[in-house]
Amino acid sequence: MPDDAKSMPRFSRAAIEDFMQRCFVATGIPNDDAGTIAHFMAETDIMGKDSHGIFRLPGYIGRLQAGGFNKTPNIRIEQERTATALVDGDNGMGHLVINYCAETAIRKAKQTGVAWVGVHHSNHAGAAGVYAMLPLAHDMIGLYVAVGSANHVPPWGGTESMLSTNPIAVAVPGMEEDPILLDMATTVTSYGKVKVHAQQGIPMPEGWMIDGAGNPLTDASLADSGYLVPIGGAKGYGLALIFGILAGTLNGAAFGKDVVDMNADNSSVTNTGQFIIALDIAAFMDVDTFKRQIDDVIRLMRSSPTLAGVDRVRLPGEGSHAAIADRVAHGIPLSVPLLDGLRNIADELNVAPLD
Amino acid sequence: MPDDAKSMPRFSRAAIEDFMQRCFVATGIPNDDAGTIAHFMAETDIMGKDSHGIFRLPGYIGRLQAGGFNKTPNIRIEQERTATALVDGDNGMGHLVINYCAETAIRKAKQTGVAWVGVHHSNHAGAAGVYAMLPLAHDMIGLYVAVGSANHVPPWGGTESMLSTNPIAVAVPGMEEDPILLDMATTVTSYGKVKVHAQQGIPMPEGWMIDGAGNPLTDASLADSGYLVPIGGAKGYGLALIFGILAGTLNGAAFGKDVVDMNADNSSVTNTGQFIIALDIAAFMDVDTFKRQIDDVIRLMRSSPTLAGVDRVRLPGEGSHAAIADRVAHGIPLSVPLLDGLRNIADELNVAPLD
Repeated sequence: MPDDAKSMPRFSRAAIEDFMQRCFVATGIPNDDAGTIAHFMAETDIMGKDSHGIFRLPGYIGRLQAGGFNKTPNIRIEQERTATALVDGDNGMGHLVINYCAETAIRKAKQTGVAWVGVHHSNHAGAAGVYAMLPLAHDMIGLYVAVGSANHVPPWGGTESMLSTNPIAVAVPGMEEDPILLDMATTVTSYGKVKVHAQQGIPMPEGWMIDGAGNPLTDASLADSGYLVPIGGAKGYGLALIFGILAGTLNGAAFGKDVVDMNADNSSVTNTGQFIIALDIAAFMDVDTFKRQIDDVIRLMRSSPTLAGVDRVRLPGEGSHAAIADRVAHGIPLSVPLLDGLRNIADELNVAPLD
Repeated sequence: MPDDAKSMPRFSRAAIEDFMQRCFVATGIPNDDAGTIAHFMAETDIMGKDSHGIFRLPGYIGRLQAGGFNKTPNIRIEQERTATALVDGDNGMGHLVINYCAETAIRKAKQTGVAWVGVHHSNHAGAAGVYAMLPLAHDMIGLYVAVGSANHVPPWGGTESMLSTNPIAVAVPGMEEDPILLDMATTVTSYGKVKVHAQQGIPMPEGWMIDGAGNPLTDASLADSGYLVPIGGAKGYGLALIFGILAGTLNGAAFGKDVVDMNADNSSVTNTGQFIIALDIAAFMDVDTFKRQIDDVIRLMRSSPTLAGVDRVRLPGEGSHAAIADRVAHGIPLSVPLLDGLRNIADELNVAPLD
């Protein structure tokens, strides 16, 4: 947690979730759907992914009011086989759409061992890790990939942003240990972190972005003229390309030049694409045996001696698990500027404010 | 192609494949199986992946003679659902085992839309890309992941090598354009490239390896005391960990401390794990439409303006496609030291030499 979060006012998950639900209801979203969206956004906040939870509420409300989302989508399976489905999200909010996809994948994988569900006409769904976690309650492994909602990455060696950070999340359950939760962009950093550096006027580390000449770009205020750097250079470009094809092109969703920058355009249909895989552990081995072996893997990694200056080896997802423990006990910290924005929304929608 | 390859003697694919087949037969592998293994090794050479094809023959023959491979494995499905299978490779050569897994995945995916086939007691199978390509003949997308055959990667921040470079390969077909073929390790470079630098006595670029203090290691002769760097730092560590769990742990195959270094130990059972996914394009959209859209994606990437000094944007797999065109027409270049080794093998096994 950043230092400044320590002094922020904190709110219970229930208070945040209820507030978001009543905001969505006030815009015209049916009560149950509003509850589902609020649930996944609050889940994101509990997991410490602050840039993808209630922080997005003002943007989402603006988009709802501008007609950019379908408030009463008919989310449905358009085409299916026993282990696959192509879902039409009907331009509903991404949280609602991906929940439907995850439920479909889990239901199918119980029978078939694995299921792969792709979607078109979805929307931004928040933090990828939240959805990769859904199969775990069914003793399954979850994988989720999304086409990012704005292009900041050129093909490797190029200077035109045609790719997004296209993230992947994978969740694997342990027995006594917390799940391994990998939730990563295919770029060294996210554009969100760049924007935070620009706001605060602090330089970026070399390696995050390059300028149009291929040199390191460290002045975050010039980010619009630069490019995010993919992890491993050509390798990260390859991953972003492949994930974009599998989550976008294969599902009839936007990819490449068709991607709509959600933050720059409040009303165009984004036709966002994602896919989720549910993999039933029992199709491969005894579930308890597997979970104990994952505990062993986690403990093995932790047992490694460390480089000077590194206190201990971490596992993917540790930050989220620590945030959950802290926030369930002490509430979710919200910044004063965000709280101001939320108060304005409450006034505008004529709903009870967050308290 | 490296400059020195231009002056190397060249051999037709048929000559190389026939030679390898008769070597394997001479060690006691049944003729058909020997042909399958030789086929995939020659396919690797045609694709330009020189460190994984006939270059490996001396090592494989040594391992066969030391009893490290089962020459007559009973490769079989141990457990299955409609869209999954767990295969027991019975310690057969990896090429044979993964071919069986790929055929199983393709057969299942025709019915179910997607299939995920994992394997234990497999072995090193050569270049990952060769197997990811197999589903394409059936209008499917292929994904293949392997647990690497030696640990050179610590968990991020650690100093004990517990992970391998655990590669992933994904192949996606175009219509007029060559397939997109991503075939990458989760580390900045492979250990094979490090060994080439050590042999030639040339320094490595910064970023490939670090030493035990976390500083860049550029003297390749000290590679044994250093560690390969994962792409994107903690992100590449996360990918190597997740791929290792999915290809190893979930299949009851070796992962972490159980990995046997194939090059250091010729006779122990490696219990190598891999998995392959076949994804049927028609389960999501019209196959021809998809392939044309992939052509569009490829051409879009190529249309990007480039950084100074970059002649053009490349697609993953371009190097392999160029090698195929060159080598089908002009043969496969083999180095003089390799040819010496192959002559020794022919003498020892009393088979007709490569000619």
